[in-house]
Amino acid sequence: MKAGIGHYQVGEAFDHYLLIKNANKGVASNGRPFLSLMLKDRTGEIDAKLWEASAEDEELFHQGEIVKVSGEVGQFRGKPQLKIHSIRPAQSTDGIKAADFIEKAPLDKESMMDRITEAVFEMKNPNLQRITRHLVKKHQEELIHYPAAVRNHHNYISGLLHHIVSMLNLAKSVAELYPEVDKDLLYAGIILHDLGKTRELSNHTSPSYTVEGKLLGHISIMSEEIKAAAEELQIEGEEVTILQHMILSHHGRQEWGSPKPPLVREAELLHYIDMMDARMNMLNRALAKTNPGEFTEKMYSLEQRAFYKPAFSK
Amino acid sequence: MKAGIGHYQVGEAFDHYLLIKNANKGVASNGRPFLSLMLKDRTGEIDAKLWEASAEDEELFHQGEIVKVSGEVGQFRGKPQLKIHSIRPAQSTDGIKAADFIEKAPLDKESMMDRITEAVFEMKNPNLQRITRHLVKKHQEELIHYPAAVRNHHNYISGLLHHIVSMLNLAKSVAELYPEVDKDLLYAGIILHDLGKTRELSNHTSPSYTVEGKLLGHISIMSEEIKAAAEELQIEGEEVTILQHMILSHHGRQEWGSPKPPLVREAELLHYIDMMDARMNMLNRALAKTNPGEFTEKMYSLEQRAFYKPAFSK
Amino acid sequence: MKAGIGHYQVGEAFDHYLLIKNANKGVASNGRPFLSLMLKDRTGEIDAKLWEASAEDEELFHQGEIVKVSGEVGQFRGKPQLKIHSIRPAQSTDGIKAADFIEKAPLDKESMMDRITEAVFEMKNPNLQRITRHLVKKHQEELIHYPAAVRNHHNYISGLLHHIVSMLNLAKSVAELYPEVDKDLLYAGIILHDLGKTRELSNHTSPSYTVEGKLLGHISIMSEEIKAAAEELQIEGEEVTILQHMILSHHGRQEWGSPKPPLVREAELLHYIDMMDARMNMLNRALAKTNPGEFTEKMYSLEQRAFYKPAFSK
Amino acid sequence: MKAGIGHYQVGEAFDHYLLIKNANKGVASNGRPFLSLMLKDRTGEIDAKLWEASAEDEELFHQGEIVKVSGEVGQFRGKPQLKIHSIRPAQSTDGIKAADFIEKAPLDKESMMDRITEAVFEMKNPNLQRITRHLVKKHQEELIHYPAAVRNHHNYISGLLHHIVSMLNLAKSVAELYPEVDKDLLYAGIILHDLGKTRELSNHTSPSYTVEGKLLGHISIMSEEIKAAAEELQIEGEEVTILQHMILSHHGRQEWGSPKPPLVREAELLHYIDMMDARMNMLNRALAKTNPGEFTEKMYSLEQRAFYKPAFSK
Amino acid sequence: MKAGIGHYQVGEAFDHYLLIKNANKGVASNGRPFLSLMLKDRTGEIDAKLWEASAEDEELFHQGEIVKVSGEVGQFRGKPQLKIHSIRPAQSTDGIKAADFIEKAPLDKESMMDRITEAVFEMKNPNLQRITRHLVKKHQEELIHYPAAVRNHHNYISGLLHHIVSMLNLAKSVAELYPEVDKDLLYAGIILHDLGKTRELSNHTSPSYTVEGKLLGHISIMSEEIKAAAEELQIEGEEVTILQHMILSHHGRQEWGSPKPPLVREAELLHYIDMMDARMNMLNRALAKTNPGEFTEKMYSLEQRAFYKPAFSK
Amino acid sequence: MKAGIGHYQVGEAFDHYLLIKNANKGVASNGRPFLSLMLKDRTGEIDAKLWEASAEDEELFHQGEIVKVSGEVGQFRGKPQLKIHSIRPAQSTDGIKAADFIEKAPLDKESMMDRITEAVFEMKNPNLQRITRHLVKKHQEELIHYPAAVRNHHNYISGLLHHIVSMLNLAKSVAELYPEVDKDLLYAGIILHDLGKTRELSNHTSPSYTVEGKLLGHISIMSEEIKAAAEELQIEGEEVTILQHMILSHHGRQEWGSPKPPLVREAELLHYIDMMDARMNMLNRALAKTNPGEFTEKMYSLEQRAFYKPAFSK
Repeated sequence: MKAGIGHYQVGEAFDHYLLIKNANKGVASNGRPFLSLMLKDRTGEIDAKLWEASAEDEELFHQGEIVKVSGEVGQFRGKPQLKIHSIRPAQSTDGIKAADFIEKAPLDKESMMDRITEAVFEMKNPNLQRITRHLVKKHQEELIHYPAAVRNHHNYISGLLHHIVSMLNLAKSVAELYPEVDKDLLYAGIILHDLGKTRELSNHTSPSYTVEGKLLGHISIMSEEIKAAAEELQIEGEEVTILQHMILSHHGRQEWGSPKPPLVREAELLHYIDMMDARMNMLNRALAKTNPGEFTEKMYSLEQRAFYKPAFSK
Repeated sequence: MKAGIGHYQVGEAFDHYLLIKNANKGVASNGRPFLSLMLKDRTGEIDAKLWEASAEDEELFHQGEIVKVSGEVGQFRGKPQLKIHSIRPAQSTDGIKAADFIEKAPLDKESMMDRITEAVFEMKNPNLQRITRHLVKKHQEELIHYPAAVRNHHNYISGLLHHIVSMLNLAKSVAELYPEVDKDLLYAGIILHDLGKTRELSNHTSPSYTVEGKLLGHISIMSEEIKAAAEELQIEGEEVTILQHMILSHHGRQEWGSPKPPLVREAELLHYIDMMDARMNMLNRALAKTNPGEFTEKMYSLEQRAFYKPAFSK
Repeated sequence: MKAGIGHYQVGEAFDHYLLIKNANKGVASNGRPFLSLMLKDRTGEIDAKLWEASAEDEELFHQGEIVKVSGEVGQFRGKPQLKIHSIRPAQSTDGIKAADFIEKAPLDKESMMDRITEAVFEMKNPNLQRITRHLVKKHQEELIHYPAAVRNHHNYISGLLHHIVSMLNLAKSVAELYPEVDKDLLYAGIILHDLGKTRELSNHTSPSYTVEGKLLGHISIMSEEIKAAAEELQIEGEEVTILQHMILSHHGRQEWGSPKPPLVREAELLHYIDMMDARMNMLNRALAKTNPGEFTEKMYSLEQRAFYKPAFSK
Repeated sequence: MKAGIGHYQVGEAFDHYLLIKNANKGVASNGRPFLSLMLKDRTGEIDAKLWEASAEDEELFHQGEIVKVSGEVGQFRGKPQLKIHSIRPAQSTDGIKAADFIEKAPLDKESMMDRITEAVFEMKNPNLQRITRHLVKKHQEELIHYPAAVRNHHNYISGLLHHIVSMLNLAKSVAELYPEVDKDLLYAGIILHDLGKTRELSNHTSPSYTVEGKLLGHISIMSEEIKAAAEELQIEGEEVTILQHMILSHHGRQEWGSPKPPLVREAELLHYIDMMDARMNMLNRALAKTNPGEFTEKMYSLEQRAFYKPAFSK
Repeated sequence: MKAGIGHYQVGEAFDHYLLIKNANKGVASNGRPFLSLMLKDRTGEIDAKLWEASAEDEELFHQGEIVKVSGEVGQFRGKPQLKIHSIRPAQSTDGIKAADFIEKAPLDKESMMDRITEAVFEMKNPNLQRITRHLVKKHQEELIHYPAAVRNHHNYISGLLHHIVSMLNLAKSVAELYPEVDKDLLYAGIILHDLGKTRELSNHTSPSYTVEGKLLGHISIMSEEIKAAAEELQIEGEEVTILQHMILSHHGRQEWGSPKPPLVREAELLHYIDMMDARMNMLNRALAKTNPGEFTEKMYSLEQRAFYKPAFSK
Repeated sequence: MKAGIGHYQVGEAFDHYLLIKNANKGVASNGRPFLSLMLKDRTGEIDAKLWEASAEDEELFHQGEIVKVSGEVGQFRGKPQLKIHSIRPAQSTDGIKAADFIEKAPLDKESMMDRITEAVFEMKNPNLQRITRHLVKKHQEELIHYPAAVRNHHNYISGLLHHIVSMLNLAKSVAELYPEVDKDLLYAGIILHDLGKTRELSNHTSPSYTVEGKLLGHISIMSEEIKAAAEELQIEGEEVTILQHMILSHHGRQEWGSPKPPLVREAELLHYIDMMDARMNMLNRALAKTNPGEFTEKMYSLEQRAFYKPAFSK
């Protein structure tokens, strides 16, 4: 058995469970109704059409349902499309759980949470430490499950946690190489920089942007929460302003959504580490699906580049 | 007597009081010390050199001092320079006040403050009204005296007040023309949009940017204060988010410092009205010093354009 | 009965008259011919397919024909599509007029024309007044009916007139706020700025660009007509050049099609007022079709933004 | 004797006639007046200071005067400066003419004018021929003497004529290579494209921009003259519109001042030929003053590039 | 008989031979397989669908096969589509050669090769001559047949040769007009500038980019070959560096793929001549298919402009 | 005694040795000659004028000479300037070496060279290892002493070595975090990426750009050397092309001088690591000279930003 739909090639037969990501009704050019399904498992997703769909089909095959499908992987307008031979809803006796069809971080969420706790514990600056701990605690529930983005990078369950932990590890090495760096400030910035996504996005299973997310954005949301936390904790001192600045500037440029560019060394570093980890996440996942000697698809978030996997790659 | 230094031409003799805006020591190419003075009154400013300056001169002629100068307006590298024949500090018996040398808004500050109060009073949405009133009260002292900017537009005493009042008047007409506009929202946005300048700038007489101003900016500062005010006043409802969005987006584009572009009709309007009033203020002041049939200097904030005053202008 | 096709939701049944905006033949994937129809009334338009279209159908259902359609509003690739149950040409006994299916300005065209006449009458500068009157008269027939654009803003019958009148009203308020403004110049610029559209566009009912429109553009066309009018009227004086400049610069920037940026105060104002009215027209029309608490579609001419209509909107 | 001031190196003695391009009074740091002179001949120009200038000096040494200067070429802030040993006005007995100090085209103006006449004569399309002939005749006096620009390229007496003739020669070859090209159209476009400079610039000896030039520009000016000429000559037909389009689009892009980009083959070609000839003129003149194995100064109009003259150049 | 598929209009019947450029299987909305064919001859290409394709059809109609097709030119989504009535593979008895269906340069390849040999022969600088001759010889086989690009300009058999010859002719005229130009250098740059395409592209009949082409590009490839050739030929001297620079800079700007902008006169000229010839090739071919009084399609490589063919064109 | 000229404030007396970086003659406004000196030691540089300079002074005080200067740090046009009280050339008995006045890397050059040797030794891919070793050996002499740039980052003796070693350390950590990374490829790219600077720059003590450096650039130079090395070592295989691509793409974007953007994972990483280390070097050195609570100067290579050093910094 193949590892998952993301690994099938055109022409191969498929016979396994998939989750219906979304389902839309359509009318074919012969005037008959059909269902346009997006099916997925943890490794990828594929488009499928259920022709001559009956009213009953429409009811059975809706978003969130797990189905057993057999068919063949074909191609339509250059994209893979599953040609359905048979399809039925999974039954309780099949012993299938929806959670198994949704991609999640490759690391365990408890150990990732521990890594954050450890980083907070290491901080020596009490002002930075208390604000960070306060906000992690406040958003802990979402932090554990949320993705780091709707698409592109770390867009899976616990992706936000994964992104933070990966950045903390990178930051630790960088701070050793450049001893001038204020590690506490850098750690605090990393842990909080995207925490506003817990309000910018609607939920962790099928996230979309909230009204607040669209009108204010995670950057302004978290800067404001830092200020409020400091007041609640009765913390005064320049650390509050600097930490707000870290969050406000972490997109690096005004045209990328930061109202201020980085004007503090650790803010500049935060931007690089964020960008490097986000881009490596996208690249590594795309290349994992690419054979040596071939190119990936054009990647929207990497300036539409298609990357090459050298023929001598392991 | 001429109306002020801003109206003198090259070649004319000058004999009047001026305020020292700044004074710097230098060493001339003959090895002798001199003072480089920037002198100003309400109508403009002019560069001057005091050659062969003694140690006593250095002490007498410092920033903030009013002096009686007689001399001749010359030119150096294409810019006017006052050639000093004699200079002495003003004496108490001269009856001269520093306030008379600093430009201020053309309208009376009390009546401008009344106009704002009136606009707040007109509001029918209690959430918007209470937040606006709360923040106006909180910053009232600075609001009365602060300029709207360090340079370019409304950069004079009570310039912020003047800018707000001018925009309110414009908004009133616009709201009548487009009855769909939510006037309360537009008024609240206008009154609060630049109020963060009271923390972004250091003081109203010779303003510079504060650390907080440089690292956070007036936009994030005021968005955050709106949220805090709403919590203090126990106001809930979408008005809070929308009002924050108005402030966050009022520069119109991310590359101009707004973390979000306007996504609400009144936010879009606020941006236009702000831009129109700021630009008319700059233009009108520059053209007031220009003769019909001539061009202004190149104006930095108006994309380096030099504007023409038609020969048939009044 | 619903107010018009623009107000129907997916899933609703429709049974009313519509105008065929355009009709194209196609061949379905089963090899059978079909008609692809764009149907419209005054409130909007909708795509529809007439499957298995006979040669007779092709003749009956052509551009400009009014039809009675019953069907159901469905969806195709995320856009509404009318699923036709039955369709027939309207008959003379139905008492339906094509004019009722074409959007037009919300104000009466005679009263709008009067407003322009009034503005010209108010002018005190005889040179500006005579040139403006001459050109209004010359293009009066088209001015009364033409839209202001093929799409985006004021793109309806008498839209050009509506745009001018709206701008005149705005200008009146602005000129009161900034008494330095030369009202005659501003009025003349507003009335003439888009008058070249009467040659740039082919007609007022289904306008497209003329060859002259594409190769010269309404900006150059009208600048040239001002010069010719001045010569015919034997008017000399700087007003002619300034007025030409107003037209040439009204797009605000070279990259937006103005060969010169505004270099005269009233030209700068004309650009703002034009932009503000065009954008408010687009925004107001899009928001009128949007429910409180929801976003509009992405709007091409507003930098692809989707605007939010606050939940507390009237 | 050296060929002219443009060929002197730092450290060399100079003793010859120069024309005063401009003269400005200044006050030195020792409080004494001096004259800042820009001196020129046909090969270049040089800055010079006349220290301790008397009132009589100020009267003697003004713009437009020819002087006999002896001195030494020094350097100030990285630029050559002539250290004056002695200076006196040229006398009538010196037999010196101002015209000899002003750069002019390397070709004879009569023969260049003949080349244009010949090109007009060659045209077979009577509409294009008559309009071109009419406008050349109308502006003949200025065409003979005007430069093609205030600075950068062909900025010398008869530079406009030189530019046109050079472009006509290029066009002739190009039209032979691409027989599809409408040579009449290309010739007409070349001859008229910059003819509006005769109104954009004030005069040919020390040209500056006219008010009309700044507010309308040579592009709109000439497009309008073509239309007026066609009406006067009672010419109808698409040639008029196409020819106007050639002029309007010859800067190639809207951001470079053309209200329309080229949309006709010959308009596209006109833009390339114009650009190539302008740039070759700048480059050739700069390289003529550069030694093999060295770089030119950074050239503003060539994107600040400094060009290299290969060591193996002739 | 029509000259070729590129000249057929919608509605016309077609009955002739075509080459299958590519063939893809699909599944129609009725669940039946079809073949999507791109058919071409020397004058153009057209999309076609073969509905209800049998397994045998799939085998018969593959890429590279010549077919006899009869059908009718229809339209699908605004693009022409051939409605197939009957189709069969060409038979040996039909006397049809694949070469006749592929577009090639309008000039004879031997005479074009001679023109290059002649240009090399004319060179007086032995270093430039020997390097050029060496590289022409090395790549002669590909040079004779390769296109100059995959799409846009000179994208046909021997297109590279055609482009070089056309540029050499242009260069000859230009060098006569500007005698300062080093003709040897310009000729060498023209002959070698795109020669790296012989490694950037996979073959001349249906070229795609090689891995080396994508990762290094023809610019770096040829610069490196020049260096290697010079070492092999034991040539030293600045000519090698200058010639490499010509190749490296011929795209004119870094954002267009040149690691250095042109910094030598002949490099600047090479860029203009390359651009002019490439653009004229695209324009001439597009206009050849356009009727007088009409516009071409929007052309991607010409900034999406649609060009107009004047009604008075021959 | 102060640590060096870089640590003196305006108003302080100075009495120590400095190296003359450059010396230029000038003429003062009183007509007397002076020397304009740029003086430096390892910590910074300062401008100074020697007034009334004699011919003997001109000979004594030239570039490269070490001088003993006493004077006072003043200010001119906002920049520090040393007011010279006395100046004399250093004598052999002073025991001063020029090398002590030139900034160099903070690490020992032998240990840095060892680090590179170690990295090469660690490589497992023989093709990458042999090419890298070959080129390091070829340029070893320059590699040991060259700076990484003329200005901005690592612009000191052995700066190139320092930059490479710092990047190798960073790369080691990054490769551990992302195990997919091909460490050999990344190491090879880092070691070779700027090695072309040894031909782009003239020497290591006062480096300027060579003709070859300006016309080809270090990117093309090193790509070409890799190819030549591979041929000399008879290495075939995709490693050669990929390694060339790493060098060609390491500036990240075409507009930053890379003819190709990174299209291989390790090339993308190389770009980030290069940028991060270069920017941290600039930032750390600027902040080392800045007091807590203050801003640095505006930094040209960091988009003109002035960075803030938090008041709570160590």
